[in-house]
This record gives sequence, structure tokens and C-alpha cells, in this order.
Amino acid sequence: MRVAICQMRSGDDVAANVATAERLLLEAADGGADLAALPETFAYLGSSTGRIAAAEPIPGPLTERLANVARDRGLWVLGGSLIERDGDRIYNTCPLFDRDGELVARYRKIHLFDVEIPGQPPFRESATFTPGDQLVTHETDVGRIGLSICYDLRFPELYRGLMVLGAEVLSVPAQFQHETGKDHWEVLLRARAIENQCYVAATGQWGTFGPPEKGRRSFGNSMVVDPWGRVVVRAPEEGDGVWFADMDMGELRRIRQTLPALQHRRLGLSC
Amino acid sequence: MRVAICQMRSGDDVAANVATAERLLLEAADGGADLAALPETFAYLGSSTGRIAAAEPIPGPLTERLANVARDRGLWVLGGSLIERDGDRIYNTCPLFDRDGELVARYRKIHLFDVEIPGQPPFRESATFTPGDQLVTHETDVGRIGLSICYDLRFPELYRGLMVLGAEVLSVPAQFQHETGKDHWEVLLRARAIENQCYVAATGQWGTFGPPEKGRRSFGNSMVVDPWGRVVVRAPEEGDGVWFADMDMGELRRIRQTLPALQHRRLGLSC
Repeated sequence: MRVAICQMRSGDDVAANVATAERLLLEAADGGADLAALPETFAYLGSSTGRIAAAEPIPGPLTERLANVARDRGLWVLGGSLIERDGDRIYNTCPLFDRDGELVARYRKIHLFDVEIPGQPPFRESATFTPGDQLVTHETDVGRIGLSICYDLRFPELYRGLMVLGAEVLSVPAQFQHETGKDHWEVLLRARAIENQCYVAATGQWGTFGPPEKGRRSFGNSMVVDPWGRVVVRAPEEGDGVWFADMDMGELRRIRQTLPALQHRRLGLSC
Repeated sequence: MRVAICQMRSGDDVAANVATAERLLLEAADGGADLAALPETFAYLGSSTGRIAAAEPIPGPLTERLANVARDRGLWVLGGSLIERDGDRIYNTCPLFDRDGELVARYRKIHLFDVEIPGQPPFRESATFTPGDQLVTHETDVGRIGLSICYDLRFPELYRGLMVLGAEVLSVPAQFQHETGKDHWEVLLRARAIENQCYVAATGQWGTFGPPEKGRRSFGNSMVVDPWGRVVVRAPEEGDGVWFADMDMGELRRIRQTLPALQHRRLGLSC
């Protein structure tokens, strides 16, 4: 089973971003992908006010665009994340479409990025977004997928929960910051793969967006990691493109059998 | 505050192993260490029957030896692990001694290594040892230490528990296998540091022990990782020795303030 990670650089032009996303998804389909994954908030990266204006309901026009590609090309599409409007609330939401273009799952980002990195303007994701509160996995013909988004990566308990729900592929669409990404991105992705004995498919934004003096630089380096923690494929730090990796669920089962750590978890540790 | 990791290669000669351990602890004291850490089961590595024969109560003769060094040199000693006999049971137990030589904490290894790696004889730690069931941290003047041993490293929930109990330094004495260590050791140590924003002090065994045809090779590579996930100091894959690292709790607090992920944990996620 083949996964394709579609790395791109989004800006504040929704039409242009969505056109790029569609082009990359088609390239993924041409390359034989069974599942293609976009990065976090691929349809809009810009100001807070622009973000709110770009929010759409799910289903809505944007999910229709993704569903069309999934149906036309018969591939699973993981829609990175969308800025979802639901009444008065806005969520950072990852939608999953099956080969018929059906929206079969959606995950609302649980951990919001409220961080002040020295030398950069503060992030306050919770000023715009409401956090989700549900773990989401979905059975696909490339394995059971567990959904997460970007900053979630720092919280091992989330991935433990997804693994317990049966996840074999952990999906991490992201717009990871360069400053933290260079030290944390690969290490945490590999750790989630190793400790949960899952594939990890992580698709990032790259490049800088926003005004020059307040620009935010994303880390790129989209990658697929196997359940032994090996990086199977890795995109460069910069550049749009599609990278492919073949996932072998037989290998995953062999690893889980050889080193049965998932059976050795001790629940209810007292302290 | 200075931590010293004392990497060594143990065999089945208890007197020789303990002499090496004492020599390394003294070297650590001479180098200005506030805390010196030995590897897992430093006093005996050999057959299952030998292991059972080498088991001692705690406190006992071996803890007395470690206590003497701690008291004589006025340093904290983390005694890697001892094969502890308690009635009919045997535990893999990490003892901690304060500067007065008092045994102030002990941790019994919770996750036992029952694994069959292809091309190697199977491990069945649970055939000899009883697992512990208590998380243990202890306040020291080098920060609050959270105790763990080797295979525990694969279980992020253990370190989450230690962090919640206030740990700032996560201690991982180990006899990590070369085969898994080359792919997992550094990644998991760095991940535990990053996700819990703690120092990690990991002291390993190195070299091969046991009969040639069934020998087990340990990974060495003892290291100290800072709360940003940077490897501060790293021992080579082979060789006895003492390596030092200075820990800065001010830096730890700055990291926790800048990137307040520990405050962003979401408890009671539903699924």
C-alpha cells in the first residue's frame, strides 16, 4: 500500500492554495498512491482575520473539491486540515475521504498552539480555534489510520490512545515551525512510530508566510517513518512536491510480534 | 549542578564489577559530580542461575558499598540497578543514595524485557524478576529525579507520570541491546526529554557478555540530554568511563515557560 505526502507552501490566496493541493493530489494518484495526505491548513495561511474569513462548514465547498479528487481518482484523501466553521465556533479539522469521495472521518485538533518563541511573534491558536475533544481513527484499505495535527505531536498520550483504538498509521499534517522543527520534528515523529509500532505519515508546510518582519517559517521535511522508527522517505526542507512510501502491514505485524512492547503496557500505575 | 554517567561493562564476577563501579564513582566525585549514575545490574551480568545467586536484600552488602562512596565523597549516587531479593521475590531495583549515604529512594523496574529478537536467544526477564508497580521520584539538590530502568524507556506513560510527580531529571540506567539500541536508544531518550521538558541521564552497559555463541551485545552510548532534546554529552559505543554534564534548572524553567506544552496536556480525552 502506497502513501503519498504532498508538501506545499500555502499563503493567503485560497484559490491558488487549493489549485496547488489539487495538482499535488493528482500527481499522487498518477504515482500510484492509495492514500494522499496534504499539510495542515493547506487552503489558507495568513492573518487571524483572514483565517476567520476563510472558515467554511464541513461539508462545504472545500471538502467538495477534495471529495471530487478522491472519487475521480479512486484514492483515499487525507485533507491535511481545514479551517472549519461550525456555528459560532472555528475548529482546525482534518477530514478523511474514501475512494468514493465520501467524507468518512473528521478530527478536530485537540492541542492548540499557544506559544511564545523568542524572536518571533507569539502564537495564540486558541484565540481563533476551539479545541476538539475526540480521538479519531478510521479503517482504510491501507491500514487503520489515527488522526492528529501538528502540535498534537508533543503529546504521547494522544498517540497511545490512537494505538489502543487500533491505529496502524499515524497521520500528522503539520505547519511545524522551523525553530522547533529542527530540534524536535524528526525525533518526535520517530518516537511515536517506535513506541506505538505504527507507520507515521507526516506532511508539512514549508517556507515563510506573512509580512517580512513577522514572517513565520515552516520546517518542511515531510516524512514517512516505519514501525521500527526508520525514515522511509523524507522531503527536503523547502519545495512543493509529492513523496511516496510503500507501507507493509506484514512488516508491522512482525515488529509487533518480535518486540511485543504493546502487550507489556502496565495500566493503572500507582504513584 | 553536575551529573556524571558511569558507563561500564559488567560480567559474572561480582567483586570485579563492584570494584569497577566504585572506581568510576570516585572518578565522578573527583570530577566534581553532584550526582553519579551507574548502569542497570552493574554488579552482575550473566546466566539466569547466576543472577538469582547474586540477588541480595536492600539494604544489604552491595547497598552498603554504594552508601559508603556517597557518604565518603558527599555525592548523590544512583546505583543503576541491583538484583534485589525480597523474600521469595527478585526485583530489578534502582537505589538512590543521598550525600550522607542514606538510601532515600528505590525503584523496582515496572516493564520487564520479554522479547525475541531474530538471531538472538530470547530474553525472558519475567522468568526471574517480579515487576514493580510504583512510580518513584525524589527531590535532590540537583533537581527532582524520576527513576526508571532500561526497557521502561519504550513506555511514554511512565515518564508522563514521573513528570506529573515533579521530575526534572529522568534517570535511565540501562543494558540496552545493540540491535535495538542503534535504532531506538537516542530517539527515545531525546523524545522523553522533549515531551516532558526534563533532563535525561542515561547510563548504559557496553560490550558483550555471555558465551560466544549466545553473547549479548550492549549498546553503550550513555548520554545526557537537555530539556530541549539536545544531546549534551555522549559516551562512545564501547569503553568504561565517566562523562560529565552540567544541568541548568534555570534553562529548564525557561524552556517550560517559552513552550508551555506541559500546561497544554488534555486529560480525559474521550474516544
